[in-house]
Amino acid sequence: MNDLFLKVCRGESVERLPVWMMRQAGRYMPEYRAIREKSDFLTMCKTPELACEVTLQPVELIGVDAAILFADILLPLEAMGSGLAFVKGDGPQLEPIRNRQDLDRLRRPDVDKELGYVYEALRLIRRELNGRVPLLGFGGTPWTLAAYLVEGGTSKSFGHLLGWSWREPEGMAELLDLLADVSADYLEGQIAAGAQAIQLFDTWGGLLDAQRWRELALPPVLKIIERLRLSPHGDVPLIFYIRGGAHLLPELAKLPVDVLSVDWRMPLDEVRAAVGERFVLQGNLDPTVLLSSPEVIVERTHEMIHQGSGGRHIANLGHGILPQVSPENARVFIGAVKAFKL
Amino acid sequence: MNDLFLKVCRGESVERLPVWMMRQAGRYMPEYRAIREKSDFLTMCKTPELACEVTLQPVELIGVDAAILFADILLPLEAMGSGLAFVKGDGPQLEPIRNRQDLDRLRRPDVDKELGYVYEALRLIRRELNGRVPLLGFGGTPWTLAAYLVEGGTSKSFGHLLGWSWREPEGMAELLDLLADVSADYLEGQIAAGAQAIQLFDTWGGLLDAQRWRELALPPVLKIIERLRLSPHGDVPLIFYIRGGAHLLPELAKLPVDVLSVDWRMPLDEVRAAVGERFVLQGNLDPTVLLSSPEVIVERTHEMIHQGSGGRHIANLGHGILPQVSPENARVFIGAVKAFKL
Repeated sequence: MNDLFLKVCRGESVERLPVWMMRQAGRYMPEYRAIREKSDFLTMCKTPELACEVTLQPVELIGVDAAILFADILLPLEAMGSGLAFVKGDGPQLEPIRNRQDLDRLRRPDVDKELGYVYEALRLIRRELNGRVPLLGFGGTPWTLAAYLVEGGTSKSFGHLLGWSWREPEGMAELLDLLADVSADYLEGQIAAGAQAIQLFDTWGGLLDAQRWRELALPPVLKIIERLRLSPHGDVPLIFYIRGGAHLLPELAKLPVDVLSVDWRMPLDEVRAAVGERFVLQGNLDPTVLLSSPEVIVERTHEMIHQGSGGRHIANLGHGILPQVSPENARVFIGAVKAFKL
Repeated sequence: MNDLFLKVCRGESVERLPVWMMRQAGRYMPEYRAIREKSDFLTMCKTPELACEVTLQPVELIGVDAAILFADILLPLEAMGSGLAFVKGDGPQLEPIRNRQDLDRLRRPDVDKELGYVYEALRLIRRELNGRVPLLGFGGTPWTLAAYLVEGGTSKSFGHLLGWSWREPEGMAELLDLLADVSADYLEGQIAAGAQAIQLFDTWGGLLDAQRWRELALPPVLKIIERLRLSPHGDVPLIFYIRGGAHLLPELAKLPVDVLSVDWRMPLDEVRAAVGERFVLQGNLDPTVLLSSPEVIVERTHEMIHQGSGGRHIANLGHGILPQVSPENARVFIGAVKAFKL
C-alpha cells in the first residue's frame, strides 16, 4: 500500500517524493486511445467501468503514486442544464449563459441522481485500486466553470465572461454563487464515494488581476472550501491548482487549502518564498520537457526537485501531460522522481 | 502638432499623458469594417492606400495620440517563404517549419522588395498624418514569430515549438537567429520609411519560465535591438510588449529598451517596483473594461493612471482592443486619459 501522497499532504515525513501527472489518464497512452476509439469522451465519463479502466491505466502502466478520477470539469454544468457536447477540434460546447435572465435556465441539480455515474465510478475505482495508491477527485473552480459556461466553450479573449462581470457584477456573483453551491454538493459527493483528496482547477483565474481575482474568483472558492471543511470528511486534503498565476501568489498565500499546485512558469523555491511554508507545493515540471530526451527529462526533473526541496512537495507537471508525449518519456519522468534520494 | 508620445519616450515633461490603443485600427470601428467588407485582411495590409486609411481612422475618429502602422506581425514570415493565409475562424495559417531540414525552405528576403508595400504605407501615412501625431512601426519578437511559424498558426499548447526547442536547441537557435536578422532588416526599413518608434510584440514569451526565456527568447531580441541602435536612426524609441510576463519582470528589467509595455495583470506601481525607474511604462487597462459602462471605464482608467504615476507613463490597454467594444466606449477611455490633470 502506497500512501506517500496522503502522507505528504498530512505533513508526515516520507522516504521519497510522491509523483503523479495531471491528465495522466489520457491520449498519450495507446491503451487509452484503444478505448477512446470505441467510445466517445462523454460516454467514457458516464460509464463507470470505462472511467475506472482508464483511471487505473497510468497506475498500472506508468507507475504513478496517485490515481485521479477520469471525468471532465464540465460535467456538473451539464447536470445544471447547460447541455454539453465535445466537438472534434473545437473542444466543449455548452448553451451559453450570458445575463441574469439566462440564469433561470440553470438549476441546482440532485447530484446523487444526475452525477451518480461519477460516484459509481469512484466507488468502483476504490474497489479496484484496493489501496494500491490514493484516489483523487476534482472539480473546476466556479470562476473557471463560469468561463466555459458564459462563453459556451473555450475562448481566446473570454469577452462575454469579462464583459458581463464588468457590466453586471451582481448577476455574475449570483452565477458564481450557484456554481459554488453545486460544486460543493458535487465534491462532497465525490468524497463520500471514496475520493481521498480533492483538487480544484482554476484554469482561468489567471485572466484576472489580483484585485479582480479577490473580488470575483475567491469568494465562491472560499464557500466550497468551507462547505467541505464542515462536512463529515472535513480532513480530506484540498489542492488548489492555478495556471498562469504568478501575479496572484500573494492572494493564493491566504487560501485555506493544504496543497498549492502551480504551473511551470515560476521555480518552486520562488513560489515558496512568496506563499510561505504552510503549503505543500505540487508541480511543476514544464509539460513540454516530456517531448525531449530521457537525459533532459531526468536533468530537469532533478532541478525541479531541488527547487522544491525547501519544504513539502508532491512532484507533478505544471499542466496536463500533452497527447504527443510518448509513454516511455512519461515513465522516465516518474522514474526520475522515484529514484531521487531525499 | 501633438508629440506627447515622443516627449514621454525621451523623458521630457508633459502636461498630460499620451494615450493610444493596441489594435486601435480594428474591427470595433464601423469605418474599419466598411473597408474590411470589401477587401480581405492581407489585401488591406498589402495595399498602402487601404493600410493608410485604416491607420488614420482612430487618429481622426477616436482621438489617439499616436498612429500605429496597420500590418500583421506575420508578414515578414511570408516574405521568408512560409506562405500565409488567414482563414475565417481559424486565424493565420503558415507552412510549418519543424526541424533543421525545414529551415532550408526559409530565406532571408530582400525586405525592400518583398515588404516594400509596408514601407510605402509608412511613407504615405507619414505624409497624410502631416505631423498630427507620431507614427509607430512594429514587429513580433523572434520567439513569437517562431511560435506561429513552427505551429503553422496559433496553438493551445505550442507543443511543436516547445518540443523542438527541447529536442534540438541548436536548430531552434538557428531559426531564432535568422528571424532576428530578418526582423532587424525589416524594422530598420520601417524606421527609414518613417516609423518614429518601434514596438516589439512578445505575445508568446510568457509561455517560458525565466531561465528559458533568457536562453531562447532574449538573445534574438538583443540582436535586433543592437542592430537598430547601431543604425542611422539609433535613437528611435523602442518599446517592448509582453503578455503574461509577471514572472519575467526581473529579466525584462535588463532589456535595453525605452518603454516596457505590460498587460493588465499587474498594477503599474508593482511593475515599476520590479523593473526600476529607467523605463517608461506603457499600458495597461484591462481591455475588457471597455465592455463596461462609461462610469466604470473612467474609474478604472483613473486608477490605472494613479498606479502609473510614480514615473513616466504612456496610457494604453493591456492588450489589443476587443472587436466587440463600442467606439463610444473607446472614446470614453481616450477622453478620460486626456482630461486627467497630472
